[in-house]
Amino acid sequence: MTTINAWAAKEAGAKLEPFTYETGELGSDEVEVDVTSCGICHSDLSMLNNEWGMAKYPFVPGHEVIGTVAKIGSAVKGLKEGQTVGVGWMAHSCLHCHQCLSGEQHHCPEAIGTIVGRHGGFADKVRAQAAWTVPLPDGITPEEAGPLFCGGVTVFSPIVDYGVKPTDRVGVVGIGGLGHMALKFLKAWGCEVWAFTTSPDKEEEAKRLGAHKVANTRDKEALKELAGKFDFILSTVNVPLPYGDYIGALAPRGRFVTVGAMVSEPMAVPAFSLIAGAKLVGGSDIGSPARIATMLEFCARHGIAPQTETYPMDKVNEAMAHLEEGKARYRIVLTR
Amino acid sequence: MTTINAWAAKEAGAKLEPFTYETGELGSDEVEVDVTSCGICHSDLSMLNNEWGMAKYPFVPGHEVIGTVAKIGSAVKGLKEGQTVGVGWMAHSCLHCHQCLSGEQHHCPEAIGTIVGRHGGFADKVRAQAAWTVPLPDGITPEEAGPLFCGGVTVFSPIVDYGVKPTDRVGVVGIGGLGHMALKFLKAWGCEVWAFTTSPDKEEEAKRLGAHKVANTRDKEALKELAGKFDFILSTVNVPLPYGDYIGALAPRGRFVTVGAMVSEPMAVPAFSLIAGAKLVGGSDIGSPARIATMLEFCARHGIAPQTETYPMDKVNEAMAHLEEGKARYRIVLTR
Repeated sequence: MTTINAWAAKEAGAKLEPFTYETGELGSDEVEVDVTSCGICHSDLSMLNNEWGMAKYPFVPGHEVIGTVAKIGSAVKGLKEGQTVGVGWMAHSCLHCHQCLSGEQHHCPEAIGTIVGRHGGFADKVRAQAAWTVPLPDGITPEEAGPLFCGGVTVFSPIVDYGVKPTDRVGVVGIGGLGHMALKFLKAWGCEVWAFTTSPDKEEEAKRLGAHKVANTRDKEALKELAGKFDFILSTVNVPLPYGDYIGALAPRGRFVTVGAMVSEPMAVPAFSLIAGAKLVGGSDIGSPARIATMLEFCARHGIAPQTETYPMDKVNEAMAHLEEGKARYRIVLTR
Repeated sequence: MTTINAWAAKEAGAKLEPFTYETGELGSDEVEVDVTSCGICHSDLSMLNNEWGMAKYPFVPGHEVIGTVAKIGSAVKGLKEGQTVGVGWMAHSCLHCHQCLSGEQHHCPEAIGTIVGRHGGFADKVRAQAAWTVPLPDGITPEEAGPLFCGGVTVFSPIVDYGVKPTDRVGVVGIGGLGHMALKFLKAWGCEVWAFTTSPDKEEEAKRLGAHKVANTRDKEALKELAGKFDFILSTVNVPLPYGDYIGALAPRGRFVTVGAMVSEPMAVPAFSLIAGAKLVGGSDIGSPARIATMLEFCARHGIAPQTETYPMDKVNEAMAHLEEGKARYRIVLTR
């Protein structure tokens, strides 16, 4: 039994308030983590506002948690007290289904999100299944690492899974919390990297983050002039796009992948734009614990970290407002 | 110079009439083929009606041509007179661009369709670049082989390119000219094969063609009951589908691929359905000459042939009407 001091919203859209809850016994496959910092992801906001209809209140956000292992369940192997770890979107999966046994634990039908029906990392402690508690390798700064655990792996996974090669010409749509990490990954991946943005003032910034070139997509002709150019385009935005033009900007066999969970309307994808040139539109979601560990190693080797702004955890409402106003450059981390 | 006796439409939607034209000199990289048979593809009809706005009149359809090599250009290697060959959708590509040099000759920006701006195989002779003139291996019956050269490779390529494995559970949407060949390929590929059809009377037929199971998609609940089941679904239809339900029927990492060139409206693809489970919607178009040759070998090894109905070429208008009425079971071949 542990008493956890957290920040919770009592109802959809409410401010976060101090909230204390008691845990049960630590599960034999769980660890308890003393939180040292926690990133804020846009999905914390979406969940707080119950945009996806799956939030329960009181609601404690926080699924980009960094901390040190404080307690270890009786069956846990491979983790030790005091070790620095992170917990991302998922906190639990069954570990015995076909997906789990295939190394696809994030696709386990029984997987439980860290903030879905349970309390997250805007708190002094959080618990998670040991398998989902990933140690930080040397070379990763804990205070910057939180956003890698959800936002980072969200844009890292499609680079791996859609077979991006260092010889590819690639583009990133949207230079924000997700997009800025995608630029860093793709630069380190060895690609020719383009940023697509409707904010021309972000051009220098995008180049600093890793883009070789920037296309201003407020100019409706810009994409058409890039027809047939890209092997891979990653969209991090959740607003409708001119999909036909983006697919047209792909070379044959090109892949347009979205991680932006647009729910307002379906994507309008012209069939012929996919058929001519054998192109695809794909989706991608976070990654397995092994994938997170692989990403962390890649980050350590290439000196990749999210660009963060920090707030002390007791300024969490200011931090959330800063995010909601679209002002975060580029990820916010709460520190304790 | 050769005089070619063909069947041509003088304007969009017109009946085909005898039409004679003179060729120029045979190009050094070309061969001239004495046509022995020619499949009718639905795209012959679409082109004849100028549905895609790229037909020129007089228009000679026919791009599933089988015949014997009659003349060989001065620079051609690897083909000899009298050899049985086929010519499909493409008749020419540049052979020196990036796509051609990558073995992706069908994605050459300069590629020329057999019936796009030139005269096709509803004729006694047809010409094509030697590279696009693919010899029939032993074990392939020439009279049945025509439909493999466009329809066949159209459904064979996505099986290869989207990484279908013999351990996969797969589905085919639409049991017609394309779909019936897809069933045969996928059965031979070793998969668990499902047919999706709105024609319950095709159930026995679909099983005879290779399906292990048949889902009646006129029943709107049928797809929902199959949620999470399929690794690969190939759509051969060109009408709007409930894409969210089909994507929902995919397992994580599943691929929904369309070869149906729907032009009436874009596909309405819910982004979230792709993101959750990291799924994709892809397109696919014909294949390179090497791919066609690989397919022909696969067909010979597995005894795969399209199911055809034959008409003598001078009954071509009856044959086209039969196709247009949706009565073809499943591909029509004109014989001379």
